[in-house]
Amino acid sequence: MHLNGRCICPSDPQFVEEKGIRAEDLVIGALESAFQECDEVIGRELEASGQVGGCTALVAVSLQGKLYVANAGDSRAILVRRDEIRPLSFEFTPETERQRIQQLAFVYPELLAGEFTRLEFPRRLKGDDLGQKVLFRDHHMSGWSYKRVEKSDLKYPLIHGQGRQARLLGTLAVSRGLGDHQLRVLDTNIQLKPFLLSVPQVTVLDVGQLELQEDDVVVMATDGLWDVLSNEQVAWLVRSFLPGNQEDPHRFLKLAQMLIHSTQGKEDSPTEEGQVSYDDVSVFVIPLHSQGQESSGH
Amino acid sequence: MHLNGRCICPSDPQFVEEKGIRAEDLVIGALESAFQECDEVIGRELEASGQVGGCTALVAVSLQGKLYVANAGDSRAILVRRDEIRPLSFEFTPETERQRIQQLAFVYPELLAGEFTRLEFPRRLKGDDLGQKVLFRDHHMSGWSYKRVEKSDLKYPLIHGQGRQARLLGTLAVSRGLGDHQLRVLDTNIQLKPFLLSVPQVTVLDVGQLELQEDDVVVMATDGLWDVLSNEQVAWLVRSFLPGNQEDPHRFLKLAQMLIHSTQGKEDSPTEEGQVSYDDVSVFVIPLHSQGQESSGH
Repeated sequence: MHLNGRCICPSDPQFVEEKGIRAEDLVIGALESAFQECDEVIGRELEASGQVGGCTALVAVSLQGKLYVANAGDSRAILVRRDEIRPLSFEFTPETERQRIQQLAFVYPELLAGEFTRLEFPRRLKGDDLGQKVLFRDHHMSGWSYKRVEKSDLKYPLIHGQGRQARLLGTLAVSRGLGDHQLRVLDTNIQLKPFLLSVPQVTVLDVGQLELQEDDVVVMATDGLWDVLSNEQVAWLVRSFLPGNQEDPHRFLKLAQMLIHSTQGKEDSPTEEGQVSYDDVSVFVIPLHSQGQESSGH
Repeated sequence: MHLNGRCICPSDPQFVEEKGIRAEDLVIGALESAFQECDEVIGRELEASGQVGGCTALVAVSLQGKLYVANAGDSRAILVRRDEIRPLSFEFTPETERQRIQQLAFVYPELLAGEFTRLEFPRRLKGDDLGQKVLFRDHHMSGWSYKRVEKSDLKYPLIHGQGRQARLLGTLAVSRGLGDHQLRVLDTNIQLKPFLLSVPQVTVLDVGQLELQEDDVVVMATDGLWDVLSNEQVAWLVRSFLPGNQEDPHRFLKLAQMLIHSTQGKEDSPTEEGQVSYDDVSVFVIPLHSQGQESSGH
């Protein structure tokens, strides 16, 4: 496989050109396939070992002057430079993927086993609401429309809750990730996995086009960090820490540790008062400058 | 129904606020529902009258200072101002909706009746290709990956051809629209309708925020116009025609006629040599300035 743009598909060069297939499309395709294969392997291993569990997945690959960030779930990667913060991923949650999830329940209503309603309402409906006009959204709608409440609308919603509290089938806060092959709604036989995608969205950063500075980094972290710190707060911590520690060979590791420390509600933390992360917190700080070859995870 | 932002849902004001539901979301929802209902009515009428046929649909609604443009199919609306061209719609074709269409064929393989392959390849595969490595894309992929050609890959592709030649099931050049309930692939029983969405995408233009000039217009037209004229060429014709005809009460009608004339390959046409539209051409020119209340269709 050649990725220099000349020899992607030796047998069909003209068709590759017609379709506008670029070298980076092959890296994206390889990452998409790798996530799916990885999920299949995890599924077999979970079954063989009788274990359960699942995870969000965020991967960064540096290849031929480009950084590929593949994300499936609610982790996040951002580029932090002196005068720029650039999101390198997009979170996949029951809210951001509402239409895809409702669409699947529309095509395959059996997946809800008669226990959930596919429709979204502004709030949980009660018996008193029967016959009333309420706002709702279905799979094909980005706007809202009215309907009269029927009995089936009183079922628990396929997607319920707002923001960090939003849950898929009352259970999961993410809509993509690896594993969770056996996960079922509590006390039922209703499976979560059909609604979960293992496919990532891949963002490409053309590092060669950036005039990189010593302190330009990519911060990758799980939702435990982003639940309590905004992109701007993380960037502020990065910019406060790195310039004063340029001689320290472990500065990226220490920055990652400091970011985790900041989620624990200490007095010097920039989080809003009382904001403590009780979730797992994993943080990677990756320097992009060619001089800074060390990277750090914690 | 109140759309002034205060009284969208009198029984649940706090939930409407939590969900961030705006007055314009109700107009969008109403348009989305209207397209679906219209498609159902067309389906019943086609069946009752024994007729066949379908169409693309593009609708503009002006309401409370906003212009809502709802599009299902391959028509297009653009805003043309003295120093701005702004697309107000997005075309739905087998190419732009590849992933949605492949996804449906993945979930419901029976829709292809064993006659088509869901996968996209850079070109039509032949018997000689069996066992060779080729590039392909499946429903979950935005990039390209490799596979070895199997016999089932030699079937006719679900989506085939490039650009204006791209066809869904070898038949349709659009992936959304109204009607076509009975349409089948030639000499087969394979239905097109399951792949066609009647749901529009709705774009909102905040007309109140624009400092409108006399000659600011929205041009809405079917693909017959856009096949041979670019947005820039249409804008050039608009800007050449209107300023010299400000006293003519029929200038918007005449501009629409002139745009249609320009697709017929006349010598004074700005289209590239030999570019003639053999498709239906419908054009509307809608003035946005409050003084210009007349609109024109042809």
